[in-house]
Amino acid sequence: MKLATFAIQDRTSYGIVTGGQVADCGAALAAALPDLKAVIAAGAFDRVAAAAADAPKLPLDGVTLLPPIGNPDKIVCVGLNYADHQAEMGKFPADAYPVLFLRVPSSQVGHGSPLVCPKLSERFDYEGELAVIIGKPGRHIAEAEALSHVAGYSIYNDGSVRDFQQHTTQYTPGKNFKASGGFGPWMVTADEIPDPHALHLTTRLNGEVLQDADTSLMIHKIPKVIAYISQWAELLPGDVISSGTPGGVGASRKPPVWMRPGDVAEIEVTGIGTLSNPVVAED
Amino acid sequence: MKLATFAIQDRTSYGIVTGGQVADCGAALAAALPDLKAVIAAGAFDRVAAAAADAPKLPLDGVTLLPPIGNPDKIVCVGLNYADHQAEMGKFPADAYPVLFLRVPSSQVGHGSPLVCPKLSERFDYEGELAVIIGKPGRHIAEAEALSHVAGYSIYNDGSVRDFQQHTTQYTPGKNFKASGGFGPWMVTADEIPDPHALHLTTRLNGEVLQDADTSLMIHKIPKVIAYISQWAELLPGDVISSGTPGGVGASRKPPVWMRPGDVAEIEVTGIGTLSNPVVAED
Repeated sequence: MKLATFAIQDRTSYGIVTGGQVADCGAALAAALPDLKAVIAAGAFDRVAAAAADAPKLPLDGVTLLPPIGNPDKIVCVGLNYADHQAEMGKFPADAYPVLFLRVPSSQVGHGSPLVCPKLSERFDYEGELAVIIGKPGRHIAEAEALSHVAGYSIYNDGSVRDFQQHTTQYTPGKNFKASGGFGPWMVTADEIPDPHALHLTTRLNGEVLQDADTSLMIHKIPKVIAYISQWAELLPGDVISSGTPGGVGASRKPPVWMRPGDVAEIEVTGIGTLSNPVVAED
Repeated sequence: MKLATFAIQDRTSYGIVTGGQVADCGAALAAALPDLKAVIAAGAFDRVAAAAADAPKLPLDGVTLLPPIGNPDKIVCVGLNYADHQAEMGKFPADAYPVLFLRVPSSQVGHGSPLVCPKLSERFDYEGELAVIIGKPGRHIAEAEALSHVAGYSIYNDGSVRDFQQHTTQYTPGKNFKASGGFGPWMVTADEIPDPHALHLTTRLNGEVLQDADTSLMIHKIPKVIAYISQWAELLPGDVISSGTPGGVGASRKPPVWMRPGDVAEIEVTGIGTLSNPVVAED
């Protein structure tokens, strides 16, 4: 099941995507379940599916897709989680622990909305990633149980402003420019993706393939990342984990490739779809 | 004006603290202004003040104080922002930019609620800090205008689990253990604190003074920090900036001093009050 969050006129809603349409399930359910985070927390995918039959069907090109989860307690991103990306960033050997940093919700936009190229930097880079959305909450989750805590998967463009990322040891500024990250186009429920490490990820900028990798190549696999995060945090319904980017980022290319106004960044993950965002100037 | 967020029975509310009481202003205003973040966003301190006259007065010891802002878009923390703390952590010279990391809302508790000592680490450290709460939103804020974007001030105990903080280059895990940070007891509106660098901060563990510094000693002053954050993020009403801790943390002491179950951690800032939290074991 593909679940999208969207805006239409001045209202936000959510529902099931099939073909080029989205069933506006939120229209009937919003009083009890205001957003997808609430749906996930209530374990209410069945209620959404049941509401779809009688829900208005809206053409996808008539709504504005939003991040599937707009208000997560946390967005945890894994850095340096593919060997070829570690090598291109000059980092070797692998850490014993996943390198983790946070993004804030206001740094992300949904499918089709513009990524904003900062006016203070020209070093705006793409990072195509598989995103994990937590369903069942938990602390001290065993690796063997970790995937049972996943509600679904989506795609993240962990847009990175490289000079700000390197101002100090902490990546925070370069990973949190307003509207610098893409998240979507929707979430696919976990029942449709039994193995998140059997997917293929492709990043294209203006149609040119710049990242092309199997998710089997992650250094720290998703169950290990979930288990480690849960050692310190309580994972909550709707929490987002972006699992790291493979080699091929713009900063490592000779000459470097940066996202510029007028570009289109696309990230495709098999079994999920394609996250596409135009790039615009800040002002 | 001291504004507190609190829980009583199964309800959360907010109001004005005077003496040992809090006026339950949220009881009348919650439909329009559900929480202090909404009050700040609406610039509605005057409505809260007007509601206080007729609001029920509750004894402070009969309510549970919560973080003044429970749902900020972002909690940005400044690392290594006092010279004596830089020196004790082995870091020298100062960065040209403030070192910034993020906390997630579920890592914090309010005044009086327990800080949870992790079962996976004994290295649970205190960090007393002055917290800034943003009022007026903004991007690319000039230093000279920065303090006009501040709604008020509070106190943060940026509780840190030192071994997890050092697992990789990124501080994230050690700064985000569930219920490891204290925030409160309330916010004091900015009109009562014309100069946030003319305050004195004292951290006590079980009554013993372990940090004792003037906020004038910050390396990167609050206007500079606000201006820098606003280069990449849009600062939003209710955003929290914790401005860094002075020297004297437990990790730097010989022998080290860690927070343990049964301890009481207190941070006092002149003009604001005292944030006090007991420390309990994780289970």
